[in-house]
Amino acid sequence: MSPKEILERYKSGEIDLVEALNHLSDRGIEEMGFATLDTDRQKRTGIPEVIYASGKTTEQVCQIATRLYEKGIDILATRVTPDMAEAILNVIPEAAYHTLARAVTWKKDSVIPAKGYITVVAAGTSDLPVAEEAVVTARFLGNRVETVYDVGVAGIHRLFNKLDLIRNATVIIVVAGMEGALASVVGGLVDRPVIGVPTSIGYGANFQGLSSLLSMLNSCASGISVVNIDNGFGAACQASLINKL
Amino acid sequence: MSPKEILERYKSGEIDLVEALNHLSDRGIEEMGFATLDTDRQKRTGIPEVIYASGKTTEQVCQIATRLYEKGIDILATRVTPDMAEAILNVIPEAAYHTLARAVTWKKDSVIPAKGYITVVAAGTSDLPVAEEAVVTARFLGNRVETVYDVGVAGIHRLFNKLDLIRNATVIIVVAGMEGALASVVGGLVDRPVIGVPTSIGYGANFQGLSSLLSMLNSCASGISVVNIDNGFGAACQASLINKL
Amino acid sequence: MSPKEILERYKSGEIDLVEALNHLSDRGIEEMGFATLDTDRQKRTGIPEVIYASGKTTEQVCQIATRLYEKGIDILATRVTPDMAEAILNVIPEAAYHTLARAVTWKKDSVIPAKGYITVVAAGTSDLPVAEEAVVTARFLGNRVETVYDVGVAGIHRLFNKLDLIRNATVIIVVAGMEGALASVVGGLVDRPVIGVPTSIGYGANFQGLSSLLSMLNSCASGISVVNIDNGFGAACQASLINKL
Amino acid sequence: MSPKEILERYKSGEIDLVEALNHLSDRGIEEMGFATLDTDRQKRTGIPEVIYASGKTTEQVCQIATRLYEKGIDILATRVTPDMAEAILNVIPEAAYHTLARAVTWKKDSVIPAKGYITVVAAGTSDLPVAEEAVVTARFLGNRVETVYDVGVAGIHRLFNKLDLIRNATVIIVVAGMEGALASVVGGLVDRPVIGVPTSIGYGANFQGLSSLLSMLNSCASGISVVNIDNGFGAACQASLINKL
Amino acid sequence: MSPKEILERYKSGEIDLVEALNHLSDRGIEEMGFATLDTDRQKRTGIPEVIYASGKTTEQVCQIATRLYEKGIDILATRVTPDMAEAILNVIPEAAYHTLARAVTWKKDSVIPAKGYITVVAAGTSDLPVAEEAVVTARFLGNRVETVYDVGVAGIHRLFNKLDLIRNATVIIVVAGMEGALASVVGGLVDRPVIGVPTSIGYGANFQGLSSLLSMLNSCASGISVVNIDNGFGAACQASLINKL
Amino acid sequence: MSPKEILERYKSGEIDLVEALNHLSDRGIEEMGFATLDTDRQKRTGIPEVIYASGKTTEQVCQIATRLYEKGIDILATRVTPDMAEAILNVIPEAAYHTLARAVTWKKDSVIPAKGYITVVAAGTSDLPVAEEAVVTARFLGNRVETVYDVGVAGIHRLFNKLDLIRNATVIIVVAGMEGALASVVGGLVDRPVIGVPTSIGYGANFQGLSSLLSMLNSCASGISVVNIDNGFGAACQASLINKL
Amino acid sequence: MSPKEILERYKSGEIDLVEALNHLSDRGIEEMGFATLDTDRQKRTGIPEVIYASGKTTEQVCQIATRLYEKGIDILATRVTPDMAEAILNVIPEAAYHTLARAVTWKKDSVIPAKGYITVVAAGTSDLPVAEEAVVTARFLGNRVETVYDVGVAGIHRLFNKLDLIRNATVIIVVAGMEGALASVVGGLVDRPVIGVPTSIGYGANFQGLSSLLSMLNSCASGISVVNIDNGFGAACQASLINKL
Amino acid sequence: MSPKEILERYKSGEIDLVEALNHLSDRGIEEMGFATLDTDRQKRTGIPEVIYASGKTTEQVCQIATRLYEKGIDILATRVTPDMAEAILNVIPEAAYHTLARAVTWKKDSVIPAKGYITVVAAGTSDLPVAEEAVVTARFLGNRVETVYDVGVAGIHRLFNKLDLIRNATVIIVVAGMEGALASVVGGLVDRPVIGVPTSIGYGANFQGLSSLLSMLNSCASGISVVNIDNGFGAACQASLINKL
Repeated sequence: MSPKEILERYKSGEIDLVEALNHLSDRGIEEMGFATLDTDRQKRTGIPEVIYASGKTTEQVCQIATRLYEKGIDILATRVTPDMAEAILNVIPEAAYHTLARAVTWKKDSVIPAKGYITVVAAGTSDLPVAEEAVVTARFLGNRVETVYDVGVAGIHRLFNKLDLIRNATVIIVVAGMEGALASVVGGLVDRPVIGVPTSIGYGANFQGLSSLLSMLNSCASGISVVNIDNGFGAACQASLINKL
Repeated sequence: MSPKEILERYKSGEIDLVEALNHLSDRGIEEMGFATLDTDRQKRTGIPEVIYASGKTTEQVCQIATRLYEKGIDILATRVTPDMAEAILNVIPEAAYHTLARAVTWKKDSVIPAKGYITVVAAGTSDLPVAEEAVVTARFLGNRVETVYDVGVAGIHRLFNKLDLIRNATVIIVVAGMEGALASVVGGLVDRPVIGVPTSIGYGANFQGLSSLLSMLNSCASGISVVNIDNGFGAACQASLINKL
Repeated sequence: MSPKEILERYKSGEIDLVEALNHLSDRGIEEMGFATLDTDRQKRTGIPEVIYASGKTTEQVCQIATRLYEKGIDILATRVTPDMAEAILNVIPEAAYHTLARAVTWKKDSVIPAKGYITVVAAGTSDLPVAEEAVVTARFLGNRVETVYDVGVAGIHRLFNKLDLIRNATVIIVVAGMEGALASVVGGLVDRPVIGVPTSIGYGANFQGLSSLLSMLNSCASGISVVNIDNGFGAACQASLINKL
Repeated sequence: MSPKEILERYKSGEIDLVEALNHLSDRGIEEMGFATLDTDRQKRTGIPEVIYASGKTTEQVCQIATRLYEKGIDILATRVTPDMAEAILNVIPEAAYHTLARAVTWKKDSVIPAKGYITVVAAGTSDLPVAEEAVVTARFLGNRVETVYDVGVAGIHRLFNKLDLIRNATVIIVVAGMEGALASVVGGLVDRPVIGVPTSIGYGANFQGLSSLLSMLNSCASGISVVNIDNGFGAACQASLINKL
Repeated sequence: MSPKEILERYKSGEIDLVEALNHLSDRGIEEMGFATLDTDRQKRTGIPEVIYASGKTTEQVCQIATRLYEKGIDILATRVTPDMAEAILNVIPEAAYHTLARAVTWKKDSVIPAKGYITVVAAGTSDLPVAEEAVVTARFLGNRVETVYDVGVAGIHRLFNKLDLIRNATVIIVVAGMEGALASVVGGLVDRPVIGVPTSIGYGANFQGLSSLLSMLNSCASGISVVNIDNGFGAACQASLINKL
Repeated sequence: MSPKEILERYKSGEIDLVEALNHLSDRGIEEMGFATLDTDRQKRTGIPEVIYASGKTTEQVCQIATRLYEKGIDILATRVTPDMAEAILNVIPEAAYHTLARAVTWKKDSVIPAKGYITVVAAGTSDLPVAEEAVVTARFLGNRVETVYDVGVAGIHRLFNKLDLIRNATVIIVVAGMEGALASVVGGLVDRPVIGVPTSIGYGANFQGLSSLLSMLNSCASGISVVNIDNGFGAACQASLINKL
Repeated sequence: MSPKEILERYKSGEIDLVEALNHLSDRGIEEMGFATLDTDRQKRTGIPEVIYASGKTTEQVCQIATRLYEKGIDILATRVTPDMAEAILNVIPEAAYHTLARAVTWKKDSVIPAKGYITVVAAGTSDLPVAEEAVVTARFLGNRVETVYDVGVAGIHRLFNKLDLIRNATVIIVVAGMEGALASVVGGLVDRPVIGVPTSIGYGANFQGLSSLLSMLNSCASGISVVNIDNGFGAACQASLINKL
Repeated sequence: MSPKEILERYKSGEIDLVEALNHLSDRGIEEMGFATLDTDRQKRTGIPEVIYASGKTTEQVCQIATRLYEKGIDILATRVTPDMAEAILNVIPEAAYHTLARAVTWKKDSVIPAKGYITVVAAGTSDLPVAEEAVVTARFLGNRVETVYDVGVAGIHRLFNKLDLIRNATVIIVVAGMEGALASVVGGLVDRPVIGVPTSIGYGANFQGLSSLLSMLNSCASGISVVNIDNGFGAACQASLINKL
């Protein structure tokens, strides 16, 4: 059926919406059999399709990265093990591996960053892999990023010492494991949106991040929202959308 | 000790930070014995102290509301039962009760709303009490609000029909119970920050909102963050901060 | 924009899919402000829009039912309290209330049922409200239904005694609380699809249906799938789709 | 006791049902000490006894496979590690190992597939091991299978583009991790039974598949049922029973 | 088909086990439509069919009780509210209501109790409803019962003071809420089987009995098994079977 | 057996420890059938037997209170409903009911309080019932108590303003719901033991206090321990033992 | 203090129970610094002290085993890895390692088994390690044991075929993973106590044995009690106590 | 801004508290980029900053340890693997590694311990790693420590035998896995504060320490508080604060 035909039959009620959708949806897709790339995503949602490497084979990740590279689409792969990173860099030597953040990036063109900046605050040194995932992602998406690390509430003056850097950001990402109290304390001191990232760092009853997740969801400070446990990537995506408003 | 003395003794190391803090913190507080009002909050965080009525006695809520009223501070009380609302309106007749949202508001002056607007999307009619809490809160905080109700993914064309209203918002609040899929679908279609509010609506294995909470936290769409179950208030607070950037 | 214009601009790339969707989706929708009826659902999914009364006000339920009635669309409302049912029957006297199933139905025309039949098996008498919700729903959707009640595995010969009635069905719905073992036993004796409905009936560690839910999900019999706790309605919907293949 | 004697004593009330059962049950069993093969299962339930390799030793799996092979019964072993597969293929060289699906199959005779077909839809590339387990199982059971991969709701037009292939299937299996929203979206667009398979793919609060499991159980689309997390095998079994009705 | 025919066709392979079962199972059943009484249960399992009143309507409970009464089968109904009890006693005046245990009993003939006795130990006064359910059930089943109440480990000498009564029992039932430690302490002091009954008594993190359930399941004393939360009935059933060995 | 005999037979090995215990334990016990009072507890553990009224009947509570009163033992009953309190005060007019704390107390003699004092800090007004249970209990046990209420971290200067009162206490009880961050913040500012009491106050994902419980257990401040959800009583007991060292 | 002195001072009230206990408890103990052997346990509880090897170092296990061996106390060590077993057999060559059961045993004298026997029923081959732990333990404790393996409810005639062996046992242990339905089915067919052992075998939503644990706790058959997940040892201990009554 | 200026502008209201805090907080901090050492912590909270090695790289741990060493601050690192310990001892040869406790310590000066002592009681040998973490920490903080090991309630006389050592301590730490009953038993026998440390030792339904955690939180003995699962360190910190009052 030609698009025109679809439309006419839809207008006349001969075919329904679902069939119409079926025929209208062949744009912005790159078929790879085991993967269906969404090449329209950057334009539609402000964030390009990203490779979440966990659960994929090295071969699959390399093939997707190569396809994106060939089509000139920027590459961000997260949760990349060192071995997998080596395999990607073999096929795309210009790409870079960020060890602590476990991420691979490649950008076709450099970008002029947005005006405001994002501050990533981390409670402890053990939270840095997640914080760095947020940092790498936010920079990849064209944002200026500042970092304030190891300022958990057990020594709250460490946080106070950096308050200027935090309060002047457009949006703040707070990364914390254990009881995640840092998000509430920061949220009570600033008039900017705060995005909490609970981490799976902590003793037994942390239950792989459940304690910090629940803690941040229940924050008594009112301008806070939360992303998934250890999801520095997701926090950076939303922060980027906010920073570019 | 006078402030000056405090400072000098702190500088000389005679007293430590904690003692200094103790003496410097007597501003922006309104003591009521059973409550300690934070009159500085609006200025510091962009959102005034709000009365969360759940767990408080009617008498306590009325006393706090009266004190705020006397000091000319705007009043928002959430989770207010009809009986409690009646008691508040007896002492503050100018206040208004929003039945569906279970909220009482009173504003000293009318505010010129921010330029952009917030769209509140709700999956089903049963989710409206939470959605309306978000609407009332966002308007109280000086925002323009649009609503798109009962557009859950079981009939996805209902959502498509309102996409313009959603895509042109500065920030979108998605309220959904059951499996909460609406947040992911909206998140995949817009380039604006989406704040998900899981609700406790649903059959047994919803477990009082756990299913929609986990669903939204695990969204495959990347620009989404989440607030607590049924917390329309919190979503509106963050949305307001974003809308006013 | 006229549909034709939409199509042309989409074809030429001027507008994207999302915008196109927005303009093509105004059919099969009935706007009610607090609700957006999906009048296309029966045709699209084989099951009409149904009123899930839980969490809605009596007024909202009556308004939706009336609108459906006026448009000649069959009505099924689930989780209807006796008070709510009375209110509906006041405005739609032809409707019927099924007390045990807590459901209201009204059908415009009688339907010739499908050839095969659905058997609803319930482990105990306490499971009957859920089983009856399935029975009422399945009949509403135009199916012949047989019932086999109170045949839990503690007295397994009660089940054996009715095996013919079960084995000759097109599809079997097994409703069971406590440990939900009945689903596995039935599943091991028939060559037809079995849909398990865990119920919230049981002592403490049933945890509102969790034990029977997990039990059915982990069934060692291989042709079983599961719906939500106490969701007799959902089981009947899928059974109906299967019975009409 | 001879069968006749059993019957007479049962009729006269001398022995009870349980004793009768004991003596009547020696058919359709293949004793192996550590295993008791159910050689009657294919005839009784439409699905033969299958080897679930997880938790068994390689030696046990090989012995069971060999016994089935010798008796001319078709073999399907799931959750087979590469090492285990090698051991099986050593003793049964005609068998085949499906790497991604982690399954070994051997069929005595080729089968003419059923008329309708099953479509397996997977949300992401990381979900393929589970999806492929469903594909291999469904084909083993004599069904035609189509696949639609990597069409998660973050880029929903990818799904629309394949709707024909999905809507024309007799039954649809939807495999999805993270928030599992794909099941609801598909369920809202088709009039065929949908079987959801939640997977354990996702960030922290996925909790090994809990988020997608709860999400699918709570689907607002009404024709969906669910199997265990990562249980592609079970979904294919039920789909096969439906496809052969 | 006559039983003889069934047998012959089963022997010849014409019909399979399931069909045979179907025809052989019409004994020991009392059909009531909404209930299928297992009149054979006492003989088969040593415990008669018991009415679990929770989730049943008063009318259903009365009908079942009446039927049992008419057939001369002993009656035990558990989880009976006072209102329900009144209704039962109206139709069966000889029956007795045990208020604390929330149980109704009626026995056709008095029974000579078994030789040994069962001791029911309860940690606190708040655990008595569950303990008394065990006592009433055990006596109903023909056992001698001793009780040792309010001897929780916070004052362990209270337990020591009654050790003779405990150690000389055939089997011991330990009923405890909160941390359920009493089961472990008793288990470490006796050489008889101990059955733990966790109760839902306790502060917040008791989570409706979860803490005492997990505690008893993890007992470091080795001769302990556990029944469901608040399930005094089940504990008494097993204790009775043991006491009568 | 006389105590001497017990000893000799134990020494000679004729009887074992358990039997010896049995005979040595008849002191410090007050038998009441449904209750076994531990009259030795005050001397042994520093805290007298206390009546936890939840789950007990009014009659049982009154009987226990009366017995304690008659024996001149101080009375503390917690979780007392207003009706129950009225019944107790009818039989013991000198007793006092603390409405907010839901506790009844009666002391034979006034006590000279310990030298140091306990500070009870509460995050919000909704946490007061739990905080007041701690206050009433601590005073009942002979301690001086100070209170600092409604100083949650959303307005952290409110806490700083009272730091002197907190830092000079012997031991600090922190009562907080929602995310419970207050315990960590206080713990990071003082060199005294901090006992956290999580409360069940909060929106949905508080899960009846789970969020604050896990939060406090995972505190990054190192001198904190935790008691059960809403257990102001338990916190006061331990605080009293510490204050009297 | 001499025992006599203790007694006199206790009688006169000079010392309290706790002090008395302290001095009377030096029998039946074997001090090893890191371990305190309870050499009195066999006599007191009918089951000797057993070595739970999990969490202990190989050196600690060997030292405890050696000490028991030297004192002529029978040895049972559970959860022993092959390496650990080798180390034990090096120092105690007469000991035996049961590979599948992961247990080491050594008995000083052979024992004449009890009259009755214990039947261990296992649902699947994957459950055998747990079943064998029960078998080895029960035999170690002097019981005759029969086994019925791989008779899960998916092919229920396999169970019926062995009913005689099961019904004639004194006590029955049912070991099952997945949905654990086998315990309920067996419980409904026998008049002997049934002890359920849930195992951690199964797909995702088994949650390491939670599904079978909850299933067995919620059994609708009334003579069933349950031990911890995978705890074949504990089940055998209680079964042994029952078998020796 | 100079401190004086800050103060004046704060007094005049020109700057707010948050800005004032920002400028007053530059003391007691040691910046390391990935870490922000809190050198003021010992003075402020009685416990110095401690290195929680879990989640940190060996390089990070060594750098922090070296910096503390250079500044003459005592070092305690917990959760240190043997490899990591070797790396630390390479750079700080005077430090000591405590293998069982998995901790590294280095103290600048020896300390005269506090007068009272802390007793660490452990239920089983498998709990020793956690118990030893408590012992090493408490000694590092300048306390005298006694240990009572392997005295679980399955053989309660082992505990009684050491009661003097327990009752005379200033504060008692009870370390127990499985059902954690030891904490309640000890708590009922002493008049000193008891700190419970649940451990992750146990069979399946221990759920990584959940059973012992809940058990201790629900203790019926009233002077008990609890720290995180396996958190021997945290228990020792609070015990030290109490012991030094």
